[in-house]
Amino acid sequence: MTDSRAISSAAAASTFGWDLHLELSGPGLRAGLTGALREAVRTGRLAPGTRLPSSRSLAADLGIARNTVAESYTELVAEGWLTARQGSGTRVAGRVRARGAAPSAPPARPARTRPAYSLVPGSPNLAEFPRKQWLTAARRALTAAPYEAFGLGDARGRVELRTAVADYLARARGVYAAPERVVICSGFHHGLALVARALAAGRVRAVAVESYGFDVYRDRLADAGLRTPPLYVDERGARTEDLARLRGIGAVLLTPAHQFPTGVALHPERRAAAVDWARATGGLILEDDYDGEFRYDRQPVGALQGLDPERVVYFGTASKSLAPGLRLAWIVPPAELFPRIMAAKGAFDWTSSSLEQLTLADFIASGAYDRHVRSMRLRYRRRRDQLVTALAERAPDIRVTGLAAGLQAVLELPPGTEQSVVRAAAGRGLAVSGLAEFGYAAGGVDWRLPERAALVVNYAAPSDSSWAGTLDTLCGVMP
Amino acid sequence: MTDSRAISSAAAASTFGWDLHLELSGPGLRAGLTGALREAVRTGRLAPGTRLPSSRSLAADLGIARNTVAESYTELVAEGWLTARQGSGTRVAGRVRARGAAPSAPPARPARTRPAYSLVPGSPNLAEFPRKQWLTAARRALTAAPYEAFGLGDARGRVELRTAVADYLARARGVYAAPERVVICSGFHHGLALVARALAAGRVRAVAVESYGFDVYRDRLADAGLRTPPLYVDERGARTEDLARLRGIGAVLLTPAHQFPTGVALHPERRAAAVDWARATGGLILEDDYDGEFRYDRQPVGALQGLDPERVVYFGTASKSLAPGLRLAWIVPPAELFPRIMAAKGAFDWTSSSLEQLTLADFIASGAYDRHVRSMRLRYRRRRDQLVTALAERAPDIRVTGLAAGLQAVLELPPGTEQSVVRAAAGRGLAVSGLAEFGYAAGGVDWRLPERAALVVNYAAPSDSSWAGTLDTLCGVMP
Repeated sequence: MTDSRAISSAAAASTFGWDLHLELSGPGLRAGLTGALREAVRTGRLAPGTRLPSSRSLAADLGIARNTVAESYTELVAEGWLTARQGSGTRVAGRVRARGAAPSAPPARPARTRPAYSLVPGSPNLAEFPRKQWLTAARRALTAAPYEAFGLGDARGRVELRTAVADYLARARGVYAAPERVVICSGFHHGLALVARALAAGRVRAVAVESYGFDVYRDRLADAGLRTPPLYVDERGARTEDLARLRGIGAVLLTPAHQFPTGVALHPERRAAAVDWARATGGLILEDDYDGEFRYDRQPVGALQGLDPERVVYFGTASKSLAPGLRLAWIVPPAELFPRIMAAKGAFDWTSSSLEQLTLADFIASGAYDRHVRSMRLRYRRRRDQLVTALAERAPDIRVTGLAAGLQAVLELPPGTEQSVVRAAAGRGLAVSGLAEFGYAAGGVDWRLPERAALVVNYAAPSDSSWAGTLDTLCGVMP
Repeated sequence: MTDSRAISSAAAASTFGWDLHLELSGPGLRAGLTGALREAVRTGRLAPGTRLPSSRSLAADLGIARNTVAESYTELVAEGWLTARQGSGTRVAGRVRARGAAPSAPPARPARTRPAYSLVPGSPNLAEFPRKQWLTAARRALTAAPYEAFGLGDARGRVELRTAVADYLARARGVYAAPERVVICSGFHHGLALVARALAAGRVRAVAVESYGFDVYRDRLADAGLRTPPLYVDERGARTEDLARLRGIGAVLLTPAHQFPTGVALHPERRAAAVDWARATGGLILEDDYDGEFRYDRQPVGALQGLDPERVVYFGTASKSLAPGLRLAWIVPPAELFPRIMAAKGAFDWTSSSLEQLTLADFIASGAYDRHVRSMRLRYRRRRDQLVTALAERAPDIRVTGLAAGLQAVLELPPGTEQSVVRAAAGRGLAVSGLAEFGYAAGGVDWRLPERAALVVNYAAPSDSSWAGTLDTLCGVMP
């Protein structure tokens, strides 16, 4: 039987001009590609100095998104397996010694292994998942479930979960919700894909996105055929006063409570400007409230949706508050968009397990969700304070911003040093993201992102056992 | 706040010419629509004799699939709320008395309520879900899970579940699988949608489907832009010898182990013909092995996939063996299709909860899955035998076919009586499907389905408490 090693060999061969076996395994497609390329370098199948195909052409050959390839290359450059230089493309680093290949001159530096530490944003602390409490909720939910719960049920999601979420959102986030208006989906990506299809079906052609912002969200919008002009972000959040200047946009994707990745809350005047724009133009605000629960210094900023529920699509998720592995998130759309979202979800798109939905409903209704969020808020605040203290001692010139909320902070660096710091960290086994990864420019606006060198540091994710080493390594590479 | 009642009122208003509030609630979109229309008739908002919009125009207005509306109408005709007559369209039945409306002449027949009994195919016995054993598996899985299991993980699904499924399929269904080649998805619909997109990306333009067959599967293929010419089914299963006569098809969707809904196994010569066609043309067979586990008289027929794993896409599911509410199914695609399926699944399409996947992995690996299937096979066989015995006593002229396997049987009726039997059953509170619901004709072939009157009877689904009443009602409406 042909195993996965050979699956994309034809595609890879046509790209590389020879028979590279890419094994698309490991966690996720991007991680799989990264692992396969790393392995190919490690074993000598990709020799030092070899020029890799452009991300565009490899992506086309493998039939995957270009961003996936580009991110994979970036990661391998950061880890030291590849080098990227303007004008000469991406190449296998000269210093890598192939394992199992014929012995050659000793490498100038030892070959890299997988990073020992990671501060890459996107994940909460997985080690703190409340297993015991979750099992208790599962037992209660499974015991009490009516037998129709084992069938397909409502395409919007279980009414028990929609009710628990509506109550929670009204109470904790100031969201104007009713159980009939909540749609359960399999994570923010799934929800955004549904809303993107609903918008496209309603003749929206472009959705403005924050820059800085997360590129995979642009991909979800682009998948539905939408243009994504950038809306620039400064120290008061997204420049919503620029919305009127962006031609032909029907919606804007914002992170008002805690801008991702810069960490600022959207200024009240800009919140008002966003709502004014939506009312004046009939546009919609897509509010990504990904970590609104985690605010450290005062009450969390309420959701924008409360200002005008008919002009805002609210997105919430259990991915930051509990775990991404649950694949549970929720949308609260305005009435006008609801039928199109349900049409996009389709009669068949019951993607979430009803048992898992009932478990989360019990977990929220019993108060366990609030207790878990409170407990994690204390832990994350302690982490944040440790980060600030360590930097103040060992790198006092580094200014830290975006600290008031969320799972990550921004470390402002001297101009021009971002890439060298990222590389130095990789050299010591620490994966960390530069702010430039999240910058995005496109035509249509004259305002530009100012030059800014910074790291985006997810202090929440490291396990307790790796935290001290992570922090020490980070401080050690500060310029 | 605008509740869901008003959500589609604008669309409905433009269709009906007045303000109908359709509440898209209840289980699923179709059930929601059916319930909303039933309620509108019951309360007099749709007056007796009112002509309803065509399914096409109502579907367009609501932004939902036309089939959903058509099925909803069919159900309401069967329940007696609506009447359908060639040339005069679908109308509100004259005999329905509006509740809360001004009193009028007493109705000729009492107004219908929701059916007390249902033999509609598609669901296993939900009351028999093994809650205790499932919780045991969940506890073990959750306790043993590494903490990365709470993250996003592999887009193909958890390796623990892919390994358990590959072992099970090799052992129980003769499927040639390796864990690297298994893709976990959220039910058969999700898997078929992914494969449809992968086929369309690979320049396939048409996929033959069985007629009789399940219309929503055609919708999944059509969603990806594929044509779906019918392949007719007779007493030896799908006429695969006709595949060569269907122009331009790149694949065929088959139910070889147990044709849905006629219940016959694909004849060995026709299995061979399907594989020969695939090899000769480079086409693919999509094998929907939805209830291959349930065979009563001898060993289950092995999967077609074993004959040629590079020409067959195998689809399996936990929806019939355990419960649809789990939303867990699996695909084993040939090597050539794998990268395109992963590209269609996308980096973001982690739709299944990793905890639920780990639980099912433990459930299979511990032997609980096999025990449950064995136990349900005995129960379903007993139900089947009770059905046959009852019919033999009370309706000895009715021939029962499709009995060897699966969750439903076919009751052959005298020509021309199918619709009147379905209506008579609805009149006594029994929802049952006529075979005509599953017939599908389209241009391109000259062979036609012979006239056949029959019921498709899901004897597995009724709860124990309703089974005697269901059986009695069924026998009572036999001609």
